[in-house]
Amino acid sequence: SRELFVLTYGALVAQLCKDYEKDEDVNTCLDRMGYGIGVRLIDDFLARSAVKKCRSYSETADMIAQVAFKMYLGVTPSVSCSSAAGNEFSLILDKNPLVDFVEELPAERASLCYCNLLCGVIRGALEMVHLAAEVTFLQDRLKGDSVTEIGITFLRKAEDRRHKRN
Amino acid sequence: SRELFVLTYGALVAQLCKDYEKDEDVNTCLDRMGYGIGVRLIDDFLARSAVKKCRSYSETADMIAQVAFKMYLGVTPSVSCSSAAGNEFSLILDKNPLVDFVEELPAERASLCYCNLLCGVIRGALEMVHLAAEVTFLQDRLKGDSVTEIGITFLRKAEDRRHKRN
Repeated sequence: SRELFVLTYGALVAQLCKDYEKDEDVNTCLDRMGYGIGVRLIDDFLARSAVKKCRSYSETADMIAQVAFKMYLGVTPSVSCSSAAGNEFSLILDKNPLVDFVEELPAERASLCYCNLLCGVIRGALEMVHLAAEVTFLQDRLKGDSVTEIGITFLRKAEDRRHKRN
Repeated sequence: SRELFVLTYGALVAQLCKDYEKDEDVNTCLDRMGYGIGVRLIDDFLARSAVKKCRSYSETADMIAQVAFKMYLGVTPSVSCSSAAGNEFSLILDKNPLVDFVEELPAERASLCYCNLLCGVIRGALEMVHLAAEVTFLQDRLKGDSVTEIGITFLRKAEDRRHKRN
C-alpha cells in the first residue's frame, strides 16, 4: 500500500528541511539519496519486470513511464520527445501520488523540488544500465503548474562508445 | 511496490544517523515521525479496510497484525498475549520487509531500533481511535534475535472512561 510510503517520504523531506536552510541543498540531498536508491532498485526492476533490452532512448523513456512508474508508484506518466536530436523526453504526470498528502509548499520553501528523489532514482537506475542522463523537474503542480513534468536528457550513447571499443 | 518504500525508509534512517550521534535520539525521532504518520494513516486504514469496531484489546491486536500489517507491509505477524491482565500483546515477525536491504547494523549503531518508525505509527493510529498504548521493539533480528517482536501495551480502557462520563 502506497500511503505509508507517501507519508514516510513526507517525513524524510520534512527532516531535510530541518537539516538544510536552503531549498537547493534539500533538492541536492534528495537527488543524491534518490541516486543511491536507483542504483539498488534497478536489480529489483529488471528481475520483476522481465523487460527486454531497450533499443532506443524512446523505448527507454516509455519503459520508465509505463513499467517502472506503474510498478513503483501506481501511475503511468505520458511521454513526449522534446528534442529533434531524440535524446530529450518529458514524463508528464497528471497525478503525482507522492504529493497526495501535501496541500502546498510553505511560502519559505518556494524553491523546494519536493519529489526530487524521483529524479535521482531515475538517474541512478539509468546509470546502472550504462545510460548517463540528466533528470530534473521542469514543471510541478506543487508550484502552480498545470501538470508535473520530469525532463530526462540522455547525455551520450553508451552503445556508440561500446562499438568504438570493440 | 514495496522496494522503493523500503529503500526510501533506509535513506531516512541514514539521514537521521547523520543528524544524531546517539542511537537513542535516532530512535526517538523515528518514533515521533511514525506517530505523526500513524495519526494521518488511520483515516486511510479505516476507509480502505472497512473494519468493524474492535470489542477487545485482543481483537485490536489481531486487527493490527492481520489487516494493517498485511495492507501496508504485506506481511502478517503472529500475535500472542503476554500478560494475565490481557493488555499486553506481542506481534512476532518472522520476516520484516523493512530490513530487506539491511545486512546488519554497523557496530557503532548497536542500539539503533532501525524500524522504530513502525512503533510510532501504531501508537499514533491507536491514539486516534482513543487507545493509549506503549509500543516498543522487544526483539529484533537485526540485533541477533531469532525473530522480530513488537510489544504493544494498552495503557487504559478508553471505553471505561467513556462509560463513566455518560
